[in-house]
Amino acid sequence: MELLMPFPPNSVPLSPINFLERASTAYADCPSLVYNNNNCNNNNFNINNSNNHNNAISYSWDQTHRRCVQAASSIKSLGVKQGDVVSVLAPNVPAMYELQFSIPMAGAIINNINTRLDPRTLSVLFRHSHSKLIFVDQLLQPLLLQALALFPAGTPRPIIIIIKDTDVENVTNGSNIVGDYKQLVEGGNPSFEWVRPKSEWDPIALNYTSGTTNSPKGVLVSHRGNYILAMDTLLEWSVPKQPVYLWTLPMFHANGWSLTWGMAAVGATNICLRKFDAPTVFEAINHHKVTHMCGAPVVLNMLANLPSAKPLEKPVEILTAGAPPPASVLFRTESLGFVVSHGYGLTETGGLVVNSAWKSKWNNYPAEERARLKARQGVGSLGMTEVNILDPKTGQPVQRDGLTLGEVVLRGGSIMLGYLKDPEGTSKSMTRTGWFRTGDVGVIHPDGYLEIKDRLKDIIISGGENISSVEVEAVLYTHPAVNEAAVVARPDEFWGETPCAFLSLKRKGKEEVTEKEIIGYCRERMAHYMVPKTVVFQEELPKTSTGKVQKFLLREMANAMGPLKVKSYTNKVITQMQ
Amino acid sequence: MELLMPFPPNSVPLSPINFLERASTAYADCPSLVYNNNNCNNNNFNINNSNNHNNAISYSWDQTHRRCVQAASSIKSLGVKQGDVVSVLAPNVPAMYELQFSIPMAGAIINNINTRLDPRTLSVLFRHSHSKLIFVDQLLQPLLLQALALFPAGTPRPIIIIIKDTDVENVTNGSNIVGDYKQLVEGGNPSFEWVRPKSEWDPIALNYTSGTTNSPKGVLVSHRGNYILAMDTLLEWSVPKQPVYLWTLPMFHANGWSLTWGMAAVGATNICLRKFDAPTVFEAINHHKVTHMCGAPVVLNMLANLPSAKPLEKPVEILTAGAPPPASVLFRTESLGFVVSHGYGLTETGGLVVNSAWKSKWNNYPAEERARLKARQGVGSLGMTEVNILDPKTGQPVQRDGLTLGEVVLRGGSIMLGYLKDPEGTSKSMTRTGWFRTGDVGVIHPDGYLEIKDRLKDIIISGGENISSVEVEAVLYTHPAVNEAAVVARPDEFWGETPCAFLSLKRKGKEEVTEKEIIGYCRERMAHYMVPKTVVFQEELPKTSTGKVQKFLLREMANAMGPLKVKSYTNKVITQMQ
Repeated sequence: MELLMPFPPNSVPLSPINFLERASTAYADCPSLVYNNNNCNNNNFNINNSNNHNNAISYSWDQTHRRCVQAASSIKSLGVKQGDVVSVLAPNVPAMYELQFSIPMAGAIINNINTRLDPRTLSVLFRHSHSKLIFVDQLLQPLLLQALALFPAGTPRPIIIIIKDTDVENVTNGSNIVGDYKQLVEGGNPSFEWVRPKSEWDPIALNYTSGTTNSPKGVLVSHRGNYILAMDTLLEWSVPKQPVYLWTLPMFHANGWSLTWGMAAVGATNICLRKFDAPTVFEAINHHKVTHMCGAPVVLNMLANLPSAKPLEKPVEILTAGAPPPASVLFRTESLGFVVSHGYGLTETGGLVVNSAWKSKWNNYPAEERARLKARQGVGSLGMTEVNILDPKTGQPVQRDGLTLGEVVLRGGSIMLGYLKDPEGTSKSMTRTGWFRTGDVGVIHPDGYLEIKDRLKDIIISGGENISSVEVEAVLYTHPAVNEAAVVARPDEFWGETPCAFLSLKRKGKEEVTEKEIIGYCRERMAHYMVPKTVVFQEELPKTSTGKVQKFLLREMANAMGPLKVKSYTNKVITQMQ
Repeated sequence: MELLMPFPPNSVPLSPINFLERASTAYADCPSLVYNNNNCNNNNFNINNSNNHNNAISYSWDQTHRRCVQAASSIKSLGVKQGDVVSVLAPNVPAMYELQFSIPMAGAIINNINTRLDPRTLSVLFRHSHSKLIFVDQLLQPLLLQALALFPAGTPRPIIIIIKDTDVENVTNGSNIVGDYKQLVEGGNPSFEWVRPKSEWDPIALNYTSGTTNSPKGVLVSHRGNYILAMDTLLEWSVPKQPVYLWTLPMFHANGWSLTWGMAAVGATNICLRKFDAPTVFEAINHHKVTHMCGAPVVLNMLANLPSAKPLEKPVEILTAGAPPPASVLFRTESLGFVVSHGYGLTETGGLVVNSAWKSKWNNYPAEERARLKARQGVGSLGMTEVNILDPKTGQPVQRDGLTLGEVVLRGGSIMLGYLKDPEGTSKSMTRTGWFRTGDVGVIHPDGYLEIKDRLKDIIISGGENISSVEVEAVLYTHPAVNEAAVVARPDEFWGETPCAFLSLKRKGKEEVTEKEIIGYCRERMAHYMVPKTVVFQEELPKTSTGKVQKFLLREMANAMGPLKVKSYTNKVITQMQ
């Protein structure tokens, strides 16, 4: 057998940018994006190019494609070179969606910035990435200027382009501001030949991890990886053609789990939202006939807890990831007509790479059993070659018994290229046997399904026992008074560490339960060594911009409390704990 | 920006074999394959390991995975090495499905052989591929032995494994026959570590082109290409999880357009059929609650023409390719409850790479308009980077006017590696500008949709005008008496070439129309230079094993008639033709 090598017709780089090119033909006159348009629904789609009095925007895929090509040509003409970083600081507005395409189409790397970060962090990130150009939403411009003011003298300053949206006056200061987004698009060349990646391994995006630790890292993901991931997520989630997709997941979160690009692959109508609350979401769903949306479990929580929520006219598919949704939230959300799918991924995987792999026959199971199965993260997706759990000591796969904890490791097509300017961090994230280390702790059930139990650093080691903080939290969530729960390790003179629970309550300000009641509640429902020995009530738990509880802050607080003293235990308690 | 290179966790080769591994977890106890089982439907799925009196087989994905691993270990232990060719000569029986996985899992290249070929061709193909091992269906063993008898003395002989299926006695002659498939599976090692490709560019399959010309070529396709294609087809066809897929498309036809592997990705129930006719298909659809099937237009024709056909209980998605289905066949098939999707591909692309890209709003168009739109091949699929039509003279893209003919060229992830042992053929199939040349002639409509008009060599050049034989055939198909139509060039003293139509009629044996009537019918419906000058009635048109009319045979017949003489034209006709 002679060796046949890749040759030009078959080895053109895989890239999700191609999805837009194809959509411009296959869905040319079909709706691509709708914003601020409460008079437009998909049955009566009318393209309009200019904003009306209501700032309404409706584009077709042909228009979106042309706008992206024009923007790409303008970005390139600003001096941006292949491989440069271009940042975007904006909520889920139309420009944010378009820039996911037009920045890579100019040959640059798109760097979406979390809009909830503080000026100091922003300043650090912009300098770390050497961002050449920053697109900023008009309302976030003051934040950006604060961040740039922290640049040391002599540091090169990025060019700034304002994304105007409302009638609010600009707060320009002139320096480095070239123009606004609208001019940039309209002034661009519609026949610009977009800059294709030289290799499919070229980075398409730089995403800073959302900061559950206090050391954000710049994750570089490739054109190839995001092609693979986007196709994978669409297929796993069984997304049909021309869905109506509501942007409740921030696009700055791993490019909307790669679905910014993925929605072009299926010719979706993207419903953009600047910000949202539960009533807005329900209104958008009914008005635009939304079929699909994504979000952290906190979004489900928000929808489930709206007292005025009425059941949906048609089922809406909702994909969630991060912590598994608590059973009560799942039931309430499903009873409203949402079909919940659950997955798992990291910024380092570009999106979801483990999916709940729901079997149709499970629909007939009792509710409690369904919730238990739905809480599992599931099975590695089609683009992941292998998913396993390794014993941290031996590096060997753990028993598939649903009990033995180990670190979740991955191998597959959408794993990041590495961390920007951090060869040490990049090589630490890999095992010698070729696995990507997630830093998450989980088990594999006898049926091969994966369940995440905790972050590696969130495991509490008490008297030699590993306690999954997530398991303790799951029980705390079942208490009727508890709104949010987070459990971390507190130093303990006797046990080394013991669980310390931070809680916010549903009726804020009114502590209708006591520490003692919570501990009693837990003792009836879990192994006694797992029961929190300390309970702290808070108005609200500290969270990252993507809705994850910032456990490192809680750990600092628990450490600051000092070690729990031996004298606080009675012999009886110690016996029970063992 | 430092260059981050592929590293082991993210660069593990893409391969559709992974779909089976994943299915063995995600769909472990769900049905994978059903055969000869008229007492089993999917609502009452009962796994059984042994055949009952009815030769019924039902497997789960866990079982299919284990059987493939075991077969792979046995294949390897027979001395098959990485990169060797292993052939299969079998209809759509369960072993045929399993071998699509187990042969590549042994590190070998699977070579499915068209079961309708003659012994001489078979003998040529087996020697061309140096096939080490041949799996043969019991009923096809005599054909194989005839083929092997044509091997010149001293030629190394492949090992033969019989796939037993019925109670028919074996016709073994002892030579080279190692055993039967059942023993091979059952004797295999269930913990065998399958042989992963060293590179995703390693060939996974060798497919000989179906022979619309008389010089078959061995197309090598890669693990990567078929991963990309399978995902692509599933997404384009919007295949949900756990469909019930009826195997009406021969698996030997480009590995069932890559859907042998693709069905594992979605955890389908594969309904296998040894052979089929229209009543069998309708019975299988109703009995197994089939949701999806594929086939050449001849399959649609067969279903549409069954007089006793009743409308389906539930819609069935049917994907067809090759020639566009004639409007009348399309209407009749759709009225029975089939949802027809139309695509385009070649053995060289591994499956369908252009899809009809149907827009939901077209459903509201009048029937004629829908048929016209559905007959177009459509838009390059997500895995194709570019699809274009080049002027054969200039090599430049043609006008997108729906009229200008040119050669269809492709660039994308599933294009073949090349032709086996044919560097000249491989390089001929590529343009200097990096395109794969399909040899098909088409147009691009103003909306960017592609329509195939003919094979390059089937174009009739008459008085300097290019005539698409397919366009003439489309008109002939609208004549109520015509069953099948094929038009080729006949030499013409005056015009160089003129169209010659070969027809089979619906009421066979009774020529209820005359040549003159057909010509008159055409003259009312097409430009006069396109009207056939010769009409030949045949009982049945000669076809390849995959249902394509063998135009090269008809061309030989037209040539044998000799050139049409000038004297047979009146001046009037010549004027009208111009």
